[in-house]
Amino acid sequence: MRLSRYFLPVQKETPAEAEIASHRLMLRAGMIRQASAGIYSWLPLGYKVLKKIEAIVHEEQQAAGAIPVLMPTIQSADLWRQSGRYDDYGAEMLRITDRGEREMLYGPTNEEQITEIAGFGIRSYRDLPRILYHIQWKFRDEVRPRFGVMRGREFLMKDAYSFDIDREGARRSYNRMFVSYLRTFERMGMKAIPMRADSGPIGGDMTHEFLILAETGESAVFLDRDLADLTLGDAAIDWEDADALQAIVDRYTASYARTDDTHEAAVFEKEVPEERRLTARGIEAGHIFYFGTKYSKPLNATVTTPDGTNVPFESGSYGIGVSRLPGAIIEASHDDRGIVWPEAVAPFEVAVINLRQGDAAADGACEDLHGKLTAAGLDVLYDDRDERAGAKFATIDLIGIPWKVVVGPRGLKEGVVELVSRRTGETETLTPDAAINRLAALYGRA
Amino acid sequence: MRLSRYFLPVQKETPAEAEIASHRLMLRAGMIRQASAGIYSWLPLGYKVLKKIEAIVHEEQQAAGAIPVLMPTIQSADLWRQSGRYDDYGAEMLRITDRGEREMLYGPTNEEQITEIAGFGIRSYRDLPRILYHIQWKFRDEVRPRFGVMRGREFLMKDAYSFDIDREGARRSYNRMFVSYLRTFERMGMKAIPMRADSGPIGGDMTHEFLILAETGESAVFLDRDLADLTLGDAAIDWEDADALQAIVDRYTASYARTDDTHEAAVFEKEVPEERRLTARGIEAGHIFYFGTKYSKPLNATVTTPDGTNVPFESGSYGIGVSRLPGAIIEASHDDRGIVWPEAVAPFEVAVINLRQGDAAADGACEDLHGKLTAAGLDVLYDDRDERAGAKFATIDLIGIPWKVVVGPRGLKEGVVELVSRRTGETETLTPDAAINRLAALYGRA
Repeated sequence: MRLSRYFLPVQKETPAEAEIASHRLMLRAGMIRQASAGIYSWLPLGYKVLKKIEAIVHEEQQAAGAIPVLMPTIQSADLWRQSGRYDDYGAEMLRITDRGEREMLYGPTNEEQITEIAGFGIRSYRDLPRILYHIQWKFRDEVRPRFGVMRGREFLMKDAYSFDIDREGARRSYNRMFVSYLRTFERMGMKAIPMRADSGPIGGDMTHEFLILAETGESAVFLDRDLADLTLGDAAIDWEDADALQAIVDRYTASYARTDDTHEAAVFEKEVPEERRLTARGIEAGHIFYFGTKYSKPLNATVTTPDGTNVPFESGSYGIGVSRLPGAIIEASHDDRGIVWPEAVAPFEVAVINLRQGDAAADGACEDLHGKLTAAGLDVLYDDRDERAGAKFATIDLIGIPWKVVVGPRGLKEGVVELVSRRTGETETLTPDAAINRLAALYGRA
Repeated sequence: MRLSRYFLPVQKETPAEAEIASHRLMLRAGMIRQASAGIYSWLPLGYKVLKKIEAIVHEEQQAAGAIPVLMPTIQSADLWRQSGRYDDYGAEMLRITDRGEREMLYGPTNEEQITEIAGFGIRSYRDLPRILYHIQWKFRDEVRPRFGVMRGREFLMKDAYSFDIDREGARRSYNRMFVSYLRTFERMGMKAIPMRADSGPIGGDMTHEFLILAETGESAVFLDRDLADLTLGDAAIDWEDADALQAIVDRYTASYARTDDTHEAAVFEKEVPEERRLTARGIEAGHIFYFGTKYSKPLNATVTTPDGTNVPFESGSYGIGVSRLPGAIIEASHDDRGIVWPEAVAPFEVAVINLRQGDAAADGACEDLHGKLTAAGLDVLYDDRDERAGAKFATIDLIGIPWKVVVGPRGLKEGVVELVSRRTGETETLTPDAAINRLAALYGRA
């Protein structure tokens, strides 16, 4: 993509209304634009990040056996009356009356709807287990929307729902999603730590929040430092091996990790040696919990068992805040100059910076690099604007592109360009072809 | 995908409420489920088709130079007051009051919002032309929603908007979208014919609807038969060559083609020789029109010209009814047994049918085919249910999979399987490996 033909309205001024780094940087980088309080348009750069995050979530959900569907945003109040949540939900639910005077609402979540669908489509224990999910816009009419996409009113969420015949089955589904979440966040280049959440009346030990550590996090978190170092790495997961999945869950839940909601100082001190006690702040990126028959019973969603009786589904719910993740990742990964995207979710994988637009050698070399990098399957932004070098560096660093190829007449006389890492600032001088090969290898396209 | 682990609630009964073939077949094939009047959940099979259609639209929009964004579903009434449309729009607009007593609405379209964004992000003629688009859910509170996804209340639409400095620029953008639409529908295996639409006060000759011919179409159409035979084929398009694009538009607009809205019998008879006059019915799949400064003026969205003055954008709007396309395609392509998907939008590209589940040879051969076809990059549904062969054929034909590989103990003794075309019924007997090669070649994965 040539920047001269793109739509990238970066802002020099720091927006006064933005209280936290991610909100400021997303506005300044031209990623989002506020449409009204807590409601944002995703401009081209922000949309690209959102789509890359969404694609990773889709791939990992399906790898773990979840099946995609898509439920509508507008729901009838009827199902919510059946579950008893219509009156409970309060002012955060956006209630709507249609032209036929029917009571509708903009879905804040989809337990009722998916339970109705499962009850319709699944008849027998032979059709279980099933995990259905969708990625859809939701609305919660926050009294005080703020922090940009981190606490918006209209937000994009992945929510999965599992259907099993008994609690043991539900645990296997829960474990699938638990491990899937570890992989999902790792693929995004993030460390999201599962923490024991408030169990409420049903969850028991099957309820975890996944928190990304960041200084500006909304929750205080308390954990065993060892947990922050655990990774799955490239280990292949056998999703059919329930014991192997349980072992992974056991490993990640063996050590103390809680948010301020569930923290017990005495337990923390007893279980974790002082040198491993980590107190930090975190941003909730995902939440998984078992809710049993809470919706299947009132909605009468049942399956037949091997002995011919009907039982309500045993279910769990598994959310990822897709549209808050760009903000959460920025909170965890930025510096004074701007955003520092992990490679996997960067809006462009590499920027080509032409230091002397209009110089025949520089223009030619940049065109060539742009073409060859694109042909190698890389997502390239070519800064071909008629601007000073400093302005180009400032823009590319603000929007956080992980790698820059810097091209100028002086280097070209020696046959070289510079390859610069956004994260470390390390610079390597090499031929254009060597730069292409390095980048292709870095991104696994070699 | 193994059917035994999928979620495919096909229905034997023909739903009483469905008046047209596509609605009946989408319900029977388990593609959609009504959530409330005119509002549908997309079940796994329907979701796959919707995503394949969406992906083609994305690719072709971007090939033609349009840049993706995403605007929210909930809009403030303010911008609509500025454009003067808030009061004009009537009862089809879903109006909402939020908890702060602000007047909001569920966007039925996005001209105001995108014009505000362009006015914010584009300052100078040097930043033009631009085409921005998104694919987003919209809501129109139809008084009588019907025909399933063909006239739903919540629907998915691609809407693009072009921004130019003058009418000549706007025509070039219009032509890009015109040619892009021809390619988009051809890639889906559909014939969508551009027809002169009602110009209203502004459009002039820059307003066309793209209609898919189908007996159940909502509009009567009148056209020169020659137009129905025109195709772009695999011709490469040079999107930077404005003259070449104009020549394509001229070729597609030279002959008479109108809907009942604009039809003039006398002109039809004068311009088209009797043997070429085609009278048929059509379904609107897309609509493109030039609207000049209709929104940029009231919203004060301007750019500076080379001589330093400010002028409002010249714009056009380009829609594709993404969520109605699965219905429109089915209307144009089905038979007594069910849906007949064009290859490009089929939910699965090939089905493997095991005639004798439990037979060691048949099971082994099917597993092998499933694995190898998947490895060849094909989207495979393996019907591994413990059902009679007749029930399997009925399901696979109902859901419209273009190709079946039929595997049974008798054929395997001779080392062969059958490859059957859904569209023609033609059957070929060949080895499993030859079937894989044929399918890979058919889908261009060879």
